[in-house]
Amino acid sequence: MLFLAETSTDGVREQLFSTHDIPAVLWSPDGARGARPLVLLSHGGGRHKKDPEMVELGRRLALDHGYAVVVPDVPAHGDRPPVEEYQRLADRNQSRVAAGEDLGPLIAAFQALVARQTVPEWRAVLDAVQQLPHVGAGPVGYWGVSLGCGLGVPFVAAEPRVRAAVLGLGGASANADLAARITAPVQFVLQWDDERVPRAHGLALYDAIGSAEKTLHANPGGHEMPPAEVDSAVRFLARHLG
Amino acid sequence: MLFLAETSTDGVREQLFSTHDIPAVLWSPDGARGARPLVLLSHGGGRHKKDPEMVELGRRLALDHGYAVVVPDVPAHGDRPPVEEYQRLADRNQSRVAAGEDLGPLIAAFQALVARQTVPEWRAVLDAVQQLPHVGAGPVGYWGVSLGCGLGVPFVAAEPRVRAAVLGLGGASANADLAARITAPVQFVLQWDDERVPRAHGLALYDAIGSAEKTLHANPGGHEMPPAEVDSAVRFLARHLG
Repeated sequence: MLFLAETSTDGVREQLFSTHDIPAVLWSPDGARGARPLVLLSHGGGRHKKDPEMVELGRRLALDHGYAVVVPDVPAHGDRPPVEEYQRLADRNQSRVAAGEDLGPLIAAFQALVARQTVPEWRAVLDAVQQLPHVGAGPVGYWGVSLGCGLGVPFVAAEPRVRAAVLGLGGASANADLAARITAPVQFVLQWDDERVPRAHGLALYDAIGSAEKTLHANPGGHEMPPAEVDSAVRFLARHLG
Repeated sequence: MLFLAETSTDGVREQLFSTHDIPAVLWSPDGARGARPLVLLSHGGGRHKKDPEMVELGRRLALDHGYAVVVPDVPAHGDRPPVEEYQRLADRNQSRVAAGEDLGPLIAAFQALVARQTVPEWRAVLDAVQQLPHVGAGPVGYWGVSLGCGLGVPFVAAEPRVRAAVLGLGGASANADLAARITAPVQFVLQWDDERVPRAHGLALYDAIGSAEKTLHANPGGHEMPPAEVDSAVRFLARHLG
């Protein structure tokens, strides 16, 4: 684990680090000592670990709840080099959409491919971060919508440390089988008029999730998480992580 | 408006009254003076105005939020006489279900018929209660699931005083056109495995609601409102009624 920079702003400590060549940011309350809940956030497609949405959410979880929050850069995003195979696939998908193919299943298949890389990466990030004395081996939460849902379903299905997950803005095209293996409580956000995820695919993914405790929140509008759902999802994590 | 009994328990004043031959209960905080938000609750089928669920919810809205809460007995329920026509229809529906017909549309059609009576009744109840100095002409909220959804959709569509409505455990068989006329914010609760309301009918009713602000909360399980959704719905009303 290589620490690259450390700052502190208004009560929140920010540590930039890299582990196994994965650059990531870790936020925690200033002066935090001892084990605490840890939330892994996944940023959206084309974004990066210090995207304004991630910063706001990370600071809020650290300040209001005392949690540690880690955000890795997804491969080919942020401070990571481009990945030729992903670029080639993205280009080919663009041609296929131009030729009239449905976007939804292509996105889902692409995300399933990237998840083969991110699942072991994120497990390694958890391993590293939980060694730190101000993080420790507390309960883990996950938050990822859109790309973060496509990558999150396989991650949450594979990682027993995750005790609660916020997912959404994703569909069942590629990962219904994996969703069925999830057992942690899930709050799933679906946008009723999502231009990228057909409504039926989103409903099918919620349906496929294996957890006994899972709740679906749907709202009118396109491919974006409404602010009231951000508040609700923070309450959901707080309820389950303590 | 005829007052029948008044008591006070642990900070909540309870007034039993009748107006236009409609028996109802009104809860308000002890010593309340001046206008305040008013919530009309509809009880479920086979229940009555002082059902334990209604009492708990009414006391909570009065104590925690300072609201006035009114619950009328639905026709043929509680202190009201049986209605021959409804009984005949209920008997006929039972035979039709025994003969293999789907229950959902029969329930919905029956509720639409009863709503022709309850919409004007509930408007009269609001008129009467809002004359009281400790209720006044504040914003109105509505809460009704199951039977209270079948009766609530036409009521909320017709009554501009309603500024926020909790609905759910109901389907679109009979009232999609009326749902389209609703403009107040709605929180809609759907049970994913509802044995009385087919999932597609519930989703179709949420879809049909005309409000720009409407949110769907779905959870696994049968025809019953989960406790966490009661909490969420109270927060929703509080956010909109102030």
